Amino acid sequence: MAGNSFGTLFKLTTFGESHGPAIGGIVDGCPAGITLDLVAVQKELQRRKPGQSAISTLRNEEDQVEFLSGIFEGQTTGTPIGFIIKNKDARSNDYDALKEVYRPGHADFTYSAKYGIRDHRGGGRSSARETACRVVAGAIAKQWLAQKGIQITAFVSQVLHVSMPLIDQPLSPDKIEASIVRCPNEAVAQKMIEIIEKARDEGDSLGGVITCVCSGIQPGIGEPVFDKLNAVLAHAMFSINAVKGFEIGDGFATTLRKGSENNDSIRNGKETNHDGGIQGGISNGKDVFFRVAFKPTSTIAKAQETHNVHGEKVTLEAKGRHDPCVLPRAVPIVEAMSAMVLMDMILIQNSTQA
Amino acid sequence: MAGNSFGTLFKLTTFGESHGPAIGGIVDGCPAGITLDLVAVQKELQRRKPGQSAISTLRNEEDQVEFLSGIFEGQTTGTPIGFIIKNKDARSNDYDALKEVYRPGHADFTYSAKYGIRDHRGGGRSSARETACRVVAGAIAKQWLAQKGIQITAFVSQVLHVSMPLIDQPLSPDKIEASIVRCPNEAVAQKMIEIIEKARDEGDSLGGVITCVCSGIQPGIGEPVFDKLNAVLAHAMFSINAVKGFEIGDGFATTLRKGSENNDSIRNGKETNHDGGIQGGISNGKDVFFRVAFKPTSTIAKAQETHNVHGEKVTLEAKGRHDPCVLPRAVPIVEAMSAMVLMDMILIQNSTQA
Amino acid sequence: MAGNSFGTLFKLTTFGESHGPAIGGIVDGCPAGITLDLVAVQKELQRRKPGQSAISTLRNEEDQVEFLSGIFEGQTTGTPIGFIIKNKDARSNDYDALKEVYRPGHADFTYSAKYGIRDHRGGGRSSARETACRVVAGAIAKQWLAQKGIQITAFVSQVLHVSMPLIDQPLSPDKIEASIVRCPNEAVAQKMIEIIEKARDEGDSLGGVITCVCSGIQPGIGEPVFDKLNAVLAHAMFSINAVKGFEIGDGFATTLRKGSENNDSIRNGKETNHDGGIQGGISNGKDVFFRVAFKPTSTIAKAQETHNVHGEKVTLEAKGRHDPCVLPRAVPIVEAMSAMVLMDMILIQNSTQA
Amino acid sequence: MAGNSFGTLFKLTTFGESHGPAIGGIVDGCPAGITLDLVAVQKELQRRKPGQSAISTLRNEEDQVEFLSGIFEGQTTGTPIGFIIKNKDARSNDYDALKEVYRPGHADFTYSAKYGIRDHRGGGRSSARETACRVVAGAIAKQWLAQKGIQITAFVSQVLHVSMPLIDQPLSPDKIEASIVRCPNEAVAQKMIEIIEKARDEGDSLGGVITCVCSGIQPGIGEPVFDKLNAVLAHAMFSINAVKGFEIGDGFATTLRKGSENNDSIRNGKETNHDGGIQGGISNGKDVFFRVAFKPTSTIAKAQETHNVHGEKVTLEAKGRHDPCVLPRAVPIVEAMSAMVLMDMILIQNSTQA
Repeated sequence: MAGNSFGTLFKLTTFGESHGPAIGGIVDGCPAGITLDLVAVQKELQRRKPGQSAISTLRNEEDQVEFLSGIFEGQTTGTPIGFIIKNKDARSNDYDALKEVYRPGHADFTYSAKYGIRDHRGGGRSSARETACRVVAGAIAKQWLAQKGIQITAFVSQVLHVSMPLIDQPLSPDKIEASIVRCPNEAVAQKMIEIIEKARDEGDSLGGVITCVCSGIQPGIGEPVFDKLNAVLAHAMFSINAVKGFEIGDGFATTLRKGSENNDSIRNGKETNHDGGIQGGISNGKDVFFRVAFKPTSTIAKAQETHNVHGEKVTLEAKGRHDPCVLPRAVPIVEAMSAMVLMDMILIQNSTQA
Repeated sequence: MAGNSFGTLFKLTTFGESHGPAIGGIVDGCPAGITLDLVAVQKELQRRKPGQSAISTLRNEEDQVEFLSGIFEGQTTGTPIGFIIKNKDARSNDYDALKEVYRPGHADFTYSAKYGIRDHRGGGRSSARETACRVVAGAIAKQWLAQKGIQITAFVSQVLHVSMPLIDQPLSPDKIEASIVRCPNEAVAQKMIEIIEKARDEGDSLGGVITCVCSGIQPGIGEPVFDKLNAVLAHAMFSINAVKGFEIGDGFATTLRKGSENNDSIRNGKETNHDGGIQGGISNGKDVFFRVAFKPTSTIAKAQETHNVHGEKVTLEAKGRHDPCVLPRAVPIVEAMSAMVLMDMILIQNSTQA
Repeated sequence: MAGNSFGTLFKLTTFGESHGPAIGGIVDGCPAGITLDLVAVQKELQRRKPGQSAISTLRNEEDQVEFLSGIFEGQTTGTPIGFIIKNKDARSNDYDALKEVYRPGHADFTYSAKYGIRDHRGGGRSSARETACRVVAGAIAKQWLAQKGIQITAFVSQVLHVSMPLIDQPLSPDKIEASIVRCPNEAVAQKMIEIIEKARDEGDSLGGVITCVCSGIQPGIGEPVFDKLNAVLAHAMFSINAVKGFEIGDGFATTLRKGSENNDSIRNGKETNHDGGIQGGISNGKDVFFRVAFKPTSTIAKAQETHNVHGEKVTLEAKGRHDPCVLPRAVPIVEAMSAMVLMDMILIQNSTQA
Repeated sequence: MAGNSFGTLFKLTTFGESHGPAIGGIVDGCPAGITLDLVAVQKELQRRKPGQSAISTLRNEEDQVEFLSGIFEGQTTGTPIGFIIKNKDARSNDYDALKEVYRPGHADFTYSAKYGIRDHRGGGRSSARETACRVVAGAIAKQWLAQKGIQITAFVSQVLHVSMPLIDQPLSPDKIEASIVRCPNEAVAQKMIEIIEKARDEGDSLGGVITCVCSGIQPGIGEPVFDKLNAVLAHAMFSINAVKGFEIGDGFATTLRKGSENNDSIRNGKETNHDGGIQGGISNGKDVFFRVAFKPTSTIAKAQETHNVHGEKVTLEAKGRHDPCVLPRAVPIVEAMSAMVLMDMILIQNSTQA
């Protein structure tokens, strides 16, 4: 339990620093006999990779996954799926100046405090680069879930003060992917892009909210009392870098309603779903949806006051290549973590049904 | 992994339905040699127990904990601490009318869907009665943490639209306990009580927000990457009944700031703590604080439309004895779960320091 | 992970010292909808209980299990099954003399070394009394397994130098139970009883071997590579007090054959089963059988030299009421642990089959 | 829990088939700040590698470990240590003939039964090649343990009927390594080599026993009741391919003694250690020693009758390059698993001592 594994039956364990030779992972517990579309797995990685659009970092990682085991003649064998992604565009020298500086908002000081030693190159283990491995595992889970009729679709619903109105029509994954900011509402997406470009030009960064909708989940998924479906989803989302808030269903907004206004009626196609498809921690068959708040990226080009390892005040001007807004690239990560949670909890539920 | 255990090294496993003979639990992994103040444990249970004030349910449970093992001559022995709390005021008959009805907002339908069988009396396992066991385990953790200088203080910061202004002075646990609504701001507490009484008289219920502040945590607690301190806290909070939202530090509000405004400087007494004492999932020595959103209690006296087990529409008028607002009683539960998380993660960190 | 839980999906957690108010446990992960025969559960406890025959200890525990949750109208509900067994005939005073003495072969010194504190009454947590809780959980597992056609039958195959010849006919559970030493061969059983009575009269104790046969297990059970079925069975058996050896199939005897003599042919009714029904850690459909070595009980009436807590040499003459040979009473414990392992591993296998 | 992870705090997860591009693993939970001797790690791999001596298989794997993360400037960083070992001399074609045949004694049939699909090349995941990853993790653990004064020394004590007399002098790791059969008694080693060469020439194989001695372990290691030190060691040993028996201390031999003969006195330098340094599942400070039985290697050149996937009887004559006796190469694997167990359990014990 040093925190680098996620899941019980479908379990991902990852390794790797942003500037070492490679990152990678092991997916254990994937059922045998699944025909994997490896091109689709790589496509998910492209959705997360840096340098994919004008509003993304210029760091250009190829992010090519290499599978080393667990797949034979195109099918999963039930044995662990090992994979690596080599770090190709790792300019460690960019970070030499940071060896003795604790960057504001980053994990530099906390890793030093925890371990007494720190790989300072690009955040080391605390870099969001690690999430590429989650996208690989999530892409496998997604394919398995899709065969069960379960779709997971996330999108950027807010950047700074620009937010989407509530959705009253089916989500279109194509529309989301057509937008470089991954917001399905074109007018809103345009405004988001404008403020992101402005922040980039100012050497600043922006946060926002990703909304995720999971449809097609049968009733009965989730384990009371401590491993409620919402609890495990919350755990999953807060394991993503920069996440500061999570709400299931109507979340904080439910606190502004009375019980008589907020209670969902049960099993009726047209009724409300304030609870987000989960009651008592168990899915009820309706869409499971939730919102995830990301703080603005900590790395900015603007000068900032901070401290160094000697406790002295220093001024930091970052020189690396960074995203002004990580949310578009975080969309596949949110989907990946959701997929892993759902697959794992469905496998657990399955165990008692055979 | 059927979800009734929480923690890795300091681990609670619970059992019990609201209307069976008893609920109880086992605390495994408590270090030996701790002198336990069992009166203080019972006091924590009093803070959670029903019927404690005018704005609480009339169900009057004595909630007397009986320890069965793991304590010898006043000290923990390192062996598992087993305990039970007998259910004394369980009027099962109150629930006979609910045998075939799925109550809105409750887990009645989802438990039936999951298990194909359901103890319908008072919510059975899904009842918040189960959380009494968490308070016992949390009270033990709190005593251990207090010896390390760690204080955990939660309070009600919002009920419906009534909310507390931001705090700029040290929290007073005594002031919180002096208020039946467990809000340290007297004027705000008075307004909260008024709207809760009004809701009760209308047969309705209210939700709100509990804020929790953990101070005295050394830097270095939390396990990257999947078991970040905030991720495990989120998991813990969402395991509590009726929780719909969680935010660490400034949470969703961080999305409305730019990076240059939101980044905390590091290790400086006077500086901001937007991140809530955690960076990269690891504590930085500042206060860890978070907010937990509770939806309004699902059980209300007002008539509601719902469905029964045969899929027919029925009108439900609840007759049980329920809280118009659970938040005051949820304060010790939030503290208990926080204490368990912190103790567990500190033990994990300790393992590598010896 | 303080060692008081066993299993992954079907999981038992236990608590309790031999001389506290009660011992007990929680079975988590039992599938819902199983009609439990609670009389059969109690019968298994009678098989383990002290004082059941002339060759057993005189300590007379009633060992009545009380179920507190997880069973509703005779069926499991899928929620945790909590239970307690009260300690009724606990004469703590018998142990006052042992407060400062480390009994040879017992865990007195090691518990003191580990925890710095020790409940000296009757071995406290290290007493075999704790295994009663395993029998309860195992009895539940046995009923579930029986519905799948799986039978688990253990018996005493050796006491000191008296051992049974190899079996070439179906085991008869009735014959085993008809023998107070739980050996199905009447002539051998008679000799065993004689040497046990002799040891008792001499104030001494005897060890021996229990053989266990599990039939009806479908091929495919067991998780490579670390959680091989034989590895988890070995773990389970060595968790029982006084166990010093374990062998699967022909065990140590296989080392005395060449590969050409020892290899089993596959899937042929009449062929050898030297491997004990497991290859590569996975069941092959044949009987899974194994042997478990128990050292002679550590507690004897004969005078022994030992040390006390001050490091002084002292002479110990035990006065408690003890078994001259624990093997007959350990038979249901071996079966219970086997049943828990099999049920858990079948649930894990099921998870990928639905 | 698909069985490819081992350990709680110090945890190894492995992947890889014998004939895929690579095998590898992730060591999670290794404390930070350990200066690792990577040459010593590689040396341990050389002790396990095929083709190392005249009595070993001719398959010649270089077995070069490549570390990909978790080590920075020669020290562990506390983050997961990822590594791979490329498969270089994997002649898959050797196995084409085996595609439809279930080899006797191997996991061919059981993997097919479990997964419905099988990588038939060289045993795939069930190949002992996987144990190379354990040697890497164990080598790291060994270095950490050595700094605490703990030594783990295994050796071959029996091959077929040739066995070593009991040891009454300190073990010499150098003497063991000087022998290609890894037996410290030269005369016995010579006889072992002779019978192994004879078996090889006959196209047959031999099994035997490895004895392992762990010295320097402080009292108090091991977690009652289910995770007794002996139980976790047994689990570890039975996770190694071909292991059929395990005994701690005097093991099965204790069943042939009376309690008065078998009980160890406590804490006295000269006294017996029949219990093998463990009482009640917890170390007592004396040497922990145990014996592990390996069946003769299943792969032999001699013709054998078996079945194919169509249920037909076929005659198999193996053509691969195999060991006539795996025991000399299994010595470092036994040591590695022992080291992982001890390090993990010491970390767990540490967690409550800080």
